Amino acid sequence: MKKHFSFESIMEMPKLHKTHFINSLGGFKSVSLLGTINNLGQSNVAIFSSIFHIGANPPLIALIFRPSPPERDTLRNILETGFYTINHINESIYKQAHQTSARYDPAISEFDITGLQSEYKNNFKAPFVSESNIQIGVEFKERIDITINNTIMIIGQITEVYVPETCLGEDGFIDLEKANTLTCSGLDSYHKTLKLDRLSYAKPDKALTSLS
Amino acid sequence: MKKHFSFESIMEMPKLHKTHFINSLGGFKSVSLLGTINNLGQSNVAIFSSIFHIGANPPLIALIFRPSPPERDTLRNILETGFYTINHINESIYKQAHQTSARYDPAISEFDITGLQSEYKNNFKAPFVSESNIQIGVEFKERIDITINNTIMIIGQITEVYVPETCLGEDGFIDLEKANTLTCSGLDSYHKTLKLDRLSYAKPDKALTSLS
Repeated sequence: MKKHFSFESIMEMPKLHKTHFINSLGGFKSVSLLGTINNLGQSNVAIFSSIFHIGANPPLIALIFRPSPPERDTLRNILETGFYTINHINESIYKQAHQTSARYDPAISEFDITGLQSEYKNNFKAPFVSESNIQIGVEFKERIDITINNTIMIIGQITEVYVPETCLGEDGFIDLEKANTLTCSGLDSYHKTLKLDRLSYAKPDKALTSLS
Repeated sequence: MKKHFSFESIMEMPKLHKTHFINSLGGFKSVSLLGTINNLGQSNVAIFSSIFHIGANPPLIALIFRPSPPERDTLRNILETGFYTINHINESIYKQAHQTSARYDPAISEFDITGLQSEYKNNFKAPFVSESNIQIGVEFKERIDITINNTIMIIGQITEVYVPETCLGEDGFIDLEKANTLTCSGLDSYHKTLKLDRLSYAKPDKALTSLS
């Protein structure tokens, strides 16, 4: 039995209740740690569940920043240095990852607080998260201000990728499940995944087949 | 052992290989069916994995359209009527959902082809997918052209929600796993989820606790 919610009934929900409700509705989300550093060498790592693919050619990835903390350090560092990392979260670090969402003083590095290890490599100007199995280095490309709700969209170009060799498919597909990458829902719910199938490219007059 | 990919090595990948690779990197994604209808009464349903939350107050949800088919019918219908539905995908319909990505003639309704049932209710101007456990009615609000790669972002306001009563938490959280909502990765991989935990709101000097 489904319950119906109108726009008016949603708007009447208490603020936090509405936040949980609407955040859940978007479905399962990507959840990753963003690594940044400012020009003084102060590093930062913060969890984000608003990362999304926008194009493969060139390879672009985007995320949404809310106008409020704790994301401000990350956004400021991205705009200051032009570089950041996206690091997938797995079962061994999701609690530390979640803890990075606490509002720490900007002078404090969440790497130190949570025990997550920063990793600098290949002259990339932002720290990767060492415990992460899939690590992505990104170069800032464009900021789009979304005026309807004062959020900010940041588009970056993928310039470095580190993936376990065992997770690489012959067709370019990366097996995220084998990399232990998690997904999240709402503000605070973390999930492992259980693969059902990979399906063939759909055509009008052809039956789908399983690729795996 | 991780393998490293530079920007240059990514750009040198064959096109479809790169598409699989970069699409996987963004992590697990929301995957839903978009239901639309044009002013002549021709309905359309199409799968999208580019849907993301951008704000709860007001309740806004966004998605990215590529400039190419098969998304064009959906985009044209949204801009023509101002209304569309987002319908979560579950295990019983993911193959039919995937089949909607085939390039059918605009005069053909994917509802007829795939056997998915359209559902019109509460005077909402677009069809819901009857088999979907979580159904969302959305009103078009804003179009943002992303010039860097010619994609289009469509922002809509959530105006109708249908959720199974058994999936509603007291704090507003919706248990997507209980609703059998799937997630996807890359272009064609479908996954169930296995909940690890819901974690408490993170604060600097407080240990996290489990909410579930």
